[in-house]
Amino acid sequence: MTKINRLMTKLPEKSCGLITSDINRRYFTGMKSSAGVLAVFNDEAYLIIDFRYIEKARDTVTDCNVIEMTDTYSQLEELIKKHDCRQLFIEDETMTVASLKRLTEKLNGCVKISPDDTLSRLIRDMRQIKTDEEIALMIKAQRIAEAALTETLNFIKEGVTEREIALFLDSHMLSMGAEALSFETIALCGENTSLPHGVPSDRRLKKGEPILMDFGAVYEGYHSDMTRTVVLGEPTEEFERVYQIVLDAQRLTINAARAGITGIELDSVARNYIAEQGYGDHFGHGLGHSVGMEIHEFPYANKSCDTVLKENIIMTIEPGIYLPKKFGIRIEDFVIIRKNGCENMTAAPKNLIKL
Amino acid sequence: MTKINRLMTKLPEKSCGLITSDINRRYFTGMKSSAGVLAVFNDEAYLIIDFRYIEKARDTVTDCNVIEMTDTYSQLEELIKKHDCRQLFIEDETMTVASLKRLTEKLNGCVKISPDDTLSRLIRDMRQIKTDEEIALMIKAQRIAEAALTETLNFIKEGVTEREIALFLDSHMLSMGAEALSFETIALCGENTSLPHGVPSDRRLKKGEPILMDFGAVYEGYHSDMTRTVVLGEPTEEFERVYQIVLDAQRLTINAARAGITGIELDSVARNYIAEQGYGDHFGHGLGHSVGMEIHEFPYANKSCDTVLKENIIMTIEPGIYLPKKFGIRIEDFVIIRKNGCENMTAAPKNLIKL
Repeated sequence: MTKINRLMTKLPEKSCGLITSDINRRYFTGMKSSAGVLAVFNDEAYLIIDFRYIEKARDTVTDCNVIEMTDTYSQLEELIKKHDCRQLFIEDETMTVASLKRLTEKLNGCVKISPDDTLSRLIRDMRQIKTDEEIALMIKAQRIAEAALTETLNFIKEGVTEREIALFLDSHMLSMGAEALSFETIALCGENTSLPHGVPSDRRLKKGEPILMDFGAVYEGYHSDMTRTVVLGEPTEEFERVYQIVLDAQRLTINAARAGITGIELDSVARNYIAEQGYGDHFGHGLGHSVGMEIHEFPYANKSCDTVLKENIIMTIEPGIYLPKKFGIRIEDFVIIRKNGCENMTAAPKNLIKL
Repeated sequence: MTKINRLMTKLPEKSCGLITSDINRRYFTGMKSSAGVLAVFNDEAYLIIDFRYIEKARDTVTDCNVIEMTDTYSQLEELIKKHDCRQLFIEDETMTVASLKRLTEKLNGCVKISPDDTLSRLIRDMRQIKTDEEIALMIKAQRIAEAALTETLNFIKEGVTEREIALFLDSHMLSMGAEALSFETIALCGENTSLPHGVPSDRRLKKGEPILMDFGAVYEGYHSDMTRTVVLGEPTEEFERVYQIVLDAQRLTINAARAGITGIELDSVARNYIAEQGYGDHFGHGLGHSVGMEIHEFPYANKSCDTVLKENIIMTIEPGIYLPKKFGIRIEDFVIIRKNGCENMTAAPKNLIKL
């Protein structure tokens, strides 16, 4: 069954789901565009899209009818009447207040518009469970990121700046086939690694210092996400010890990840271990987040997300320990949650690399 | 007067402008962040921002009070009471339906929330008029893009792909100091240049073919935008003739640009000239758009925007002629609208470059 057909079966009778966000439109139609409206009725769906995209849409979008946009609102009104539709659901998490106002004015009286979260929830629940095809694209994205990392490890030497490392990673991901970067690449050196949200600067790498890289590639709309912390030359004894604690925390958590566990429970596996080792105050962020067409998707593994993880969710496992003014270490893989465990999609080595 | 102070003077009495979008928050505070709330009352303003950004905010944000975020809604409620505020305006063009719902629930009864366009309009009107400081940042962004273009013209040779050209431009803009790209760079070769919204592919450049590049750099949050069409070797006679028409259309339009003219009038200068030359059916997009912290800002120069252009608006002038299956030519500069004319911020040459 196509994704559009699955959504149809979940929509209330005589209703329409109006999909206007770029990502959800791409999720259901398979085609990237910066404008367009996908109207999903109970038995039929329509992509209304403008002249810039119409040829490509006619060639590639097969799961719904494709209509050239002339006047979106009157085209919608016609379809609403044709399908005897009584209720229109919108994506409340992405539609702006102004867009809803315009839509309400234009479709005034023709249909009841529900500004509730029905449609956003239906789509969120669908998107969290990845199909085999989606998983394959994310593995491809991850392999691109790993190949770029291999090149970058050869590039890193004394005196390079954080910005240069980030740029090297980025340009290699893009030249190796990434359509975009998953997010602004983080590359930090020395004591800067202790900032979980640091931004690459012109600071130069010195011998004996750690390098933390958090990055990902986008392939056909799907994101990868990984972090590695490596060191140039010989680290301090303390660094090696803390590295091992983060690595053990990550391995324990990966061993615990499976369908049926909640986000809080999974997070606590890493959090408790790190606390037992005496670093409980130094793991200030959540363990992980789901990934897909967006880099941060629902559900999360953190101190507050009590959602039960389902089969075929893809989630990052990224514990870290950050010692202010000294160093920070984060190790991040992403895994597919399965019935009795999980599969690690990340192939890059995790034992401490000394360049 | 600071930007925040100017906004204060425009807000109705006993009201608050709640700024939650990343771009407007950066516009008023000067600091980039991915979260935070700026609450502007009639006589005082507050940036409520979380632990990740609080140190930087305390160091750099001087135009308002900085408060560490604990519970945004109760912090807001307290400030609303303190300032005896009766009406809260939101940014209707960026706030989502779900966010407004949450805000309304949380602040229930404490203040009247206006979902109208008051605040979005006030900010839009402020942002369209650039200060000298903003103009300087945009010129810096433009110089980065131009320096990357110079390198790219040396790189382009027979057999390179569109993607390779785009990637070369991108990595050079970033290594030359761009904090980001203004948008996904367009680099097209041969007959692909006739697609105004084409996406770089693996198509290889052949001798005698045109290369169209549309790209920009972001510097301190401000965007540049330019397009050049060059050719590898000798073009056809038709190509040279059409190039001259586009160039003349652009020069005529730049000569006509000044405060007091409407977007429609400015657009028509290029449009009428291109029509007179027999290519009226082949200029399918608008003449230009304003640029600033976003790549497309209000007002526009096109067939429908009858807004009068004001002094110190920065706007692209980008006429083009697109002959399907043959070639397309677009030449784009961006200019500062002045009282009696305009200043061209683009320094790159425009006579046809034959590589």
